[in-house]
Amino acid sequence: MRLSVEGCQARRARLIAQTPTEWIIITNPRHLLYCTPLELSSWGSNFLVINTRSGHTTLIAHSFIQNTAMTAYYDDLVLWRSYDAYHAPTGDWFQGALAQLNLFTQNYGIQQAACEFGWLPHGLLVEPTLDLTPILERMQRQKDADELALIRHNVHVVEAGHAAARQAIRPGATELDVYNAICTAMTHTAGKPILPLGDFVSGERAFHIGGPPTDRVLKTGEVMIVDLFPVVGGYRADFTATIAVGDQPTESQHRLADALHAALAAGEALLRPSESTRAIYEAVKSTLDAQGYEGSFPHHTGHGLGLGHPQAPYIVADSTETLLEGDVITLEPGAYGPDFGARIEHNYLITATGYERLSNHRTTLV
Amino acid sequence: MRLSVEGCQARRARLIAQTPTEWIIITNPRHLLYCTPLELSSWGSNFLVINTRSGHTTLIAHSFIQNTAMTAYYDDLVLWRSYDAYHAPTGDWFQGALAQLNLFTQNYGIQQAACEFGWLPHGLLVEPTLDLTPILERMQRQKDADELALIRHNVHVVEAGHAAARQAIRPGATELDVYNAICTAMTHTAGKPILPLGDFVSGERAFHIGGPPTDRVLKTGEVMIVDLFPVVGGYRADFTATIAVGDQPTESQHRLADALHAALAAGEALLRPSESTRAIYEAVKSTLDAQGYEGSFPHHTGHGLGLGHPQAPYIVADSTETLLEGDVITLEPGAYGPDFGARIEHNYLITATGYERLSNHRTTLV
Repeated sequence: MRLSVEGCQARRARLIAQTPTEWIIITNPRHLLYCTPLELSSWGSNFLVINTRSGHTTLIAHSFIQNTAMTAYYDDLVLWRSYDAYHAPTGDWFQGALAQLNLFTQNYGIQQAACEFGWLPHGLLVEPTLDLTPILERMQRQKDADELALIRHNVHVVEAGHAAARQAIRPGATELDVYNAICTAMTHTAGKPILPLGDFVSGERAFHIGGPPTDRVLKTGEVMIVDLFPVVGGYRADFTATIAVGDQPTESQHRLADALHAALAAGEALLRPSESTRAIYEAVKSTLDAQGYEGSFPHHTGHGLGLGHPQAPYIVADSTETLLEGDVITLEPGAYGPDFGARIEHNYLITATGYERLSNHRTTLV
Repeated sequence: MRLSVEGCQARRARLIAQTPTEWIIITNPRHLLYCTPLELSSWGSNFLVINTRSGHTTLIAHSFIQNTAMTAYYDDLVLWRSYDAYHAPTGDWFQGALAQLNLFTQNYGIQQAACEFGWLPHGLLVEPTLDLTPILERMQRQKDADELALIRHNVHVVEAGHAAARQAIRPGATELDVYNAICTAMTHTAGKPILPLGDFVSGERAFHIGGPPTDRVLKTGEVMIVDLFPVVGGYRADFTATIAVGDQPTESQHRLADALHAALAAGEALLRPSESTRAIYEAVKSTLDAQGYEGSFPHHTGHGLGLGHPQAPYIVADSTETLLEGDVITLEPGAYGPDFGARIEHNYLITATGYERLSNHRTTLV
């Protein structure tokens, strides 16, 4: 499952429409995926050159990824070779890639281009005249159908991870046991290896928001925070549950879980286009404050999701953004203190009239 | 488990001794790990600035990695902030990091520096006058004690993966089942999440060298190639077995396995300092040719391992390198054709008088 040719075509057309320069050079692997639709991040240093007048597009890629590159959407392909597991390397991979890009722009007389300013290598011969990063980031806030299909697929993968976590969390298991059960379930659901990023913290480790799994043994009466945000096909889903070990939550754990659900509902009630993200932050925080958790909610209320994690909109105290139709966001109220810690989280698509909740995992303690 | 402060200190001293310029700037995350010993790759855009006269070292890092950065080895720490999950972002992460580096070099009057030329961002104000990449790559060929300890640890992780593969490979299992069993075993042995890179191909997929696992179902009479090269603590091990499904290999599978073991032995017989890597390639290839597999061995005979995979020395037909004491290398004879495919692989440390085989997994079909 990946982005569609039609989707890439539409996104390129929108990018071209916002770019007054004759040439565009894309270097950030996320945006190569957005436009080609190649997942090339692991090999780096591939470039997409677009002529905005004709729409003609050239992919400059390393021969190591030839088979993958053949499946992409472009007009011309420039394959170059350094080390390929057959011949001795001809020099540094990254310098070799840049030399190919410089050769191409010189051959075509390209002197200026719109580029992602944060993603340009030293030694680029073209003069970067317009920063595409803000344009591409703004475009990413309104998801296309093929992007939403990928995100929904990832949501199913993460739901499978959460179901496996509920099975695996029991007294005597380690955080790593739970992690392995989650990874197995997510890989089976994705049908391929994924990058299983997340937080996997139990007991007193849950009092400090998150972290990787360890060999810590779970004990009855504790909780474990499971926050899963794997990368599947380049896109993210990101949602959390806090689960009781031994199915006997304490009264204070119940009280905190109730407060988090009330805070989430307060945030959900504001999810619609044009709503201020600062107002959403305030609604969630004031609900937690009112339930006695002042000073216990240190992090963002949520953020945008997609090719990036986090990405705009940022739902924080000093935000100046408003929601847009097509945003995919997460809300994640949490509270942490000297002897408690919990977080719940769902993902949402902002629709014309409000929102659609994308995630359907259980967020209760048991 | 990670690189030691003493090891980092020794490597920095060796780097400084080979650098005539007053200033060094390290930007490649692998080399930050080599010298600090921070594993920072996932967040990118951190910098190490070294004054070669005094040895004084400054880490310029994003505040998001503050806790990790606090555990590193340096004299001064410059922490800067863009998005940190608390406040709205102040701009593009990568441009923000570069601005901090430029501010630092201007404040200290640094006009020129030795740098990794392939890892420099556009907009760097310092003039790069010496390329550190070849120096650092040459240094990496002679492993320090702390590097070898990490590689030996990774070897144990991969051995656990191979043992799990032998248990999981049976008729009716899928490649993904085998992959999940391997990941679970490797994670438990590492005691933390790892990046489980590798090849997981069965049946006719094994006729084409490698690839990711799929939901293909294993059948009696087939083989599965399992090549594991996970990243653990920034370092690699990398070894392969080809395993019979159903424990009843055919005569032709046995014949190929015997040829691969003979080819591996021919390569091992040449492992000593000053030996030509081309001669090792020829010994392995001619052994396979003599057993009737001419034209079936398309890839390298092996390569160096460590922070990179592959890295020098490259054991290929047109290589001009020779082995060094301290090299960690892999040998991986394979043969692939219209109805066969298999590969075996071990890892070796080149010693003063010959070699030590690091990996101890089974390479037989059953």
